[in-house]
Parts: sequence; C-alpha cells; structure tokens
Amino acid sequence: MNKQYAVSMPLLAQELELFEDYLEKSFPADSYIEKTARELITGGGKRLRPALVIASAMTGSYDRDRALPLAAAIETMHAATLVHDDVIDGAETRRDRPALHTLSGNHVAVYTGDYMLARSLRMLAACKLPTEEMTRLAIVIEQICTGDASQYLGRSRIPGYRTYLRRILGKTGMLFAAACSGGGYIGQVEEKHQKKLWHFGLRLGASFQIRDDLLDIENDDRAGKPTGRDLMDGIVTLPLILASANSEFRAELEGFLGGERDEVKLKDLISWARQTGSLQRSRKILEDNLDRCRSIAAELPQSDATAYLLNFVDMLEA
Amino acid sequence: MNKQYAVSMPLLAQELELFEDYLEKSFPADSYIEKTARELITGGGKRLRPALVIASAMTGSYDRDRALPLAAAIETMHAATLVHDDVIDGAETRRDRPALHTLSGNHVAVYTGDYMLARSLRMLAACKLPTEEMTRLAIVIEQICTGDASQYLGRSRIPGYRTYLRRILGKTGMLFAAACSGGGYIGQVEEKHQKKLWHFGLRLGASFQIRDDLLDIENDDRAGKPTGRDLMDGIVTLPLILASANSEFRAELEGFLGGERDEVKLKDLISWARQTGSLQRSRKILEDNLDRCRSIAAELPQSDATAYLLNFVDMLEA
Repeated sequence: MNKQYAVSMPLLAQELELFEDYLEKSFPADSYIEKTARELITGGGKRLRPALVIASAMTGSYDRDRALPLAAAIETMHAATLVHDDVIDGAETRRDRPALHTLSGNHVAVYTGDYMLARSLRMLAACKLPTEEMTRLAIVIEQICTGDASQYLGRSRIPGYRTYLRRILGKTGMLFAAACSGGGYIGQVEEKHQKKLWHFGLRLGASFQIRDDLLDIENDDRAGKPTGRDLMDGIVTLPLILASANSEFRAELEGFLGGERDEVKLKDLISWARQTGSLQRSRKILEDNLDRCRSIAAELPQSDATAYLLNFVDMLEA
Repeated sequence: MNKQYAVSMPLLAQELELFEDYLEKSFPADSYIEKTARELITGGGKRLRPALVIASAMTGSYDRDRALPLAAAIETMHAATLVHDDVIDGAETRRDRPALHTLSGNHVAVYTGDYMLARSLRMLAACKLPTEEMTRLAIVIEQICTGDASQYLGRSRIPGYRTYLRRILGKTGMLFAAACSGGGYIGQVEEKHQKKLWHFGLRLGASFQIRDDLLDIENDDRAGKPTGRDLMDGIVTLPLILASANSEFRAELEGFLGGERDEVKLKDLISWARQTGSLQRSRKILEDNLDRCRSIAAELPQSDATAYLLNFVDMLEA
C-alpha cells in the first residue's frame, strides 16, 4: 500500500518513509522481548493509523518532531493490542506470518504486548502532549479493551445494532479518531477543526470495520481469509445482524451459534443472509459513513492534506 | 499492614486512606472489564508502592493532588502486571483469592490487565509529569516485562548472580525506585535527593525480592506458600544460586531441573542447600542491602518522612 501512497500522496509517502526509520530507531534489539517486539512492529502492516496522524497534522502546520512520535506511539499501541488479541483468539497467523504466541507461547506474547505498550508510553512522552490529549488517548485504549472484551463475552450471541456500533467504535473507530485529532493537535489546527478530525476518524474507523464485515461475507479474498470465518468464531457481523430482523433467519442463526458449527450450515446461512438483502443494506450503511467522512473533510481548510484524507475514504469503497 | 501503619506512621496512614478513596473513585464499575479491574485493584494488597510514593513526596513539600494520582498509577501498573503474570504462570490464587484467569479465562485477564495499564496512563496524565519523568516510568515498565520474560525464558536453568540481580531489579527494584524518586519529584525535593530516593528504592526493591527468596526456602509460612515452590516452578532463587558454587550441589540441582521434579528430591535439595550455608550468605546480602538503604536515607533531609522510609527498611528484616 505504501507504493500506492507514493503516487497519489507524495508528501505523505515521504513522511511515512521517515516514520519507518523513526520506528526502527525506537526499537532496540537487545533482549529476546526487544527483538521480538522489533520484528513485529517493523514487519509491515498498512500503517493506516500513522498515515492518518501525519495527514491530519499536515492539515495544519506540520511538525515532524512531534508527529512521528505520535504516529509511532499509536501504531505501537495498535500492534500491542494485535499481539494480545492473538493470545486470546488463538489466531495462528497474523499478517501472513505465524502469530507470535504459536511460536513462543502465551508467556512471551503477553510480555511482548506489555513491553510494546510501555514503549508507546515512552514515545508519547516525546510528543509533549497536554493532560487532556494524554487522557483522551488513555481512554481510547480503555475502550479498545472494553470493546474487545464485550465482543468476546458476547460471542455466540446476536448483538443489537447499537451494541454493534459501540463495539466497532471502541475496537477501531476511537483509535482512528485519536490518530486524526491528535495529528490535528500537533499541527496546531483550530480546536473546532480538531473536533472535526476526531469525528472524521471515528466514522472512517467504523467504515473500516463495516467493510471488514462485508469482506468476510462477500466471499472475496481481499480479506485474505475464507468466507464466514467471523461467524465460525461466534462473531456476528453487520450483515448477519441486519438479516436477523427476519425472525426465521434469527432462529436459524441462533441454532447455528448454539450448536455444532459446520461448513455446510455456514454456507446455507450466508446465502440466506444474502437473499434478505442485508448485504446491500450493510453496503448502504458503509456508504453513508463514507459520505459523512467526505462532508466532514469538506468543512476543513482545503489543502493537499485534506485531499489525502479523502483518499483514505475512497480506499474504503466496498 | 495498614493498621500497623496507623500506629507507627500516622501521617502516612491518613494519606493511604485518602489513597484508597482516590483509587476507588478512579475505577468505574460499568462494563464487565471495569468491574473486574475495580475488584482487583480495591481488593487489597500491601500498598507498599503507594506508601513509598507518599512517604517520599513527604520528604519534600507534599502535594496531595499529584502524589495520590502517581501512587495510584504505580499501584495500578503493578496490579496489571500481576494479572498478566497469573495468565502466564497459571497461578491459581493471588492474594488468597482465585486468580482472575481461573475465573474468567485468559481472555478477560489479558484485556483487564491492558485496561488497567491504560487507566494508569490516565492517572499519570493527572500528575503532569515532565517528559523525563514519564520516560523513566515507561522504561521501568519495559524493564518489568523484559525482566519477567528473562526469568521465564531462563527457567529451569541456574542463573549467575549478576543475571539474578538484573532480574530482581527489573522485576521489583525499578518500580520501587520509580515510586520513591517520583514521589520526591512531586515533593519538589532537590535533584540530588531525587537521585538518592531512586537508589533507596532500588535497594529496597532488591531486598524485598531477596527476602521473598529466603521465605520460599526457610519453610516459613509468612510467605503463605509451601517451601520451595519457586524451585518446583523452575525458578532458581538466591540461596540455591549461591549453593551452586559447590559443583556437586550444582550437578544435583541441574539434574532436578532437567528431570522429573518431586517433593522428596525437592526436600533433599533444600536441606543440602541449607548445609552449604547459602541461607546465611543470602541473609547477609539482604542485610547489606538494607544497611545501604539506611545509609542513603541518612543522607536525606531528616524528618518524619525519612523515619517512615526507615520503617519500610525495618519491615524487611528477615
């Protein structure tokens, strides 16, 4: 994806290269844990959150010395939660490599995630954020934890749309929002624009998650995993939540979640869900969110940086 | 232990009561994770680290509004690492209650620990620490992770004395040190005294850990667990490291660590270790550390607060 950035967003692509250097420099490779964390964090990823920090900072007066540490802190927090998620999910691969815990056991994975959280605190210190900004970021991490836990504890049950929304905002939306508004803060944009950046990020993060849900059902290998994996794990995604408005479908889905799950039943359920039109409705919700992102971006001072933010919106078109 | 404080350190005991209120107020009980974290953090513990923050802050001009958040942040970090340690160790009890992961599974335990780390970040924000102090605390948490990991990865092997020392400083010493010097910072004591407080905490933390090692071997139920548990888990404590200077003992210990571990062999090993005089030598190391604490405290401006710090030293007499 970084190559794609180079063409469409040259200024951003250039900063993202410096970001990679900064990140590498921030992770020593002395002890085993340090080496592990370094490999995990420098081993790739779409760098969406750092790109949002940088592009948002560019909407104001860009300050590299504070933007890169914030971008790195947020990416490191995100990577730390992925490491811990893998412990929890028992996922066997992550970013096409074997997940850490399958290589080294839960022990190392938990310590490595904690170490990364501590590292991100060190980077945050370098950003010299005021109390309110620090507090906001802390709340975002809390929301990621409570959001993930809520999804885990509520697995194999069909959540309502509002619960679903709260979860995806906690899981993804709020960190996107913190990336955008934090970037805006560092770029010293007006407070009202920082708020707009927050809402832009929130909607973008929700869109990102909804798109993920669509990809899981659309039998599309863009997500790099077979159809319906979430449901096999007891996670009920948006299209299935919407399809559950139909009480017969709901009963069938509850039966699937409560009983033995097999591939045949899964296939049947998904094709039934498709027939209810819930995919189109999900796509409509995604579109509405993306449109909302566009109109928020239109209210920001217009520059290359706002065009970059709009690029991210376009990338999430289903 | 708090009752004990009330008699010997009335000013500190009074602040520790306010500390409990602050802690309780800082932990909401809305979601499942929040409730769990609240129960864990308000459910007791010796409050040694908060007491050190407060006593150290009292060596200067005490500022409750910043001392209590720092004390709470450090105690919360400590509690978070305990929750994660339990996931890792598979410990079934903690502070005489069933460990969290045995009640709710690893999932909730990992999320709860992460949530607590995020909460501690929020409390830290309230302390308005400068970059250097924040960085120092971040490094301490990193050291806890790398120290714990080093112990885990090196289990069932006999470490050298230097490795042992590095581990206990990482695991316990540095957080004690951060508590003392952080308290001193908030009390606005002179920089040279902050440094002395750091070293005081470091030595005190090391003493705490060495005493723990002694209790594990001394067949003493003060530690609340049967003799030699650490060794059964493949953790080689100080008395056994010292006894391993004897090559016959070392060979026997290596055999134990590499083979089937049973209670009879364990008993034999421990009684052999006793005969080598390694307990006395460990006690001597503890005494030397405690004496060093006392002489550092003597170099601080003398007040009730320094007397309190000395009380903590006395409590660790074996």
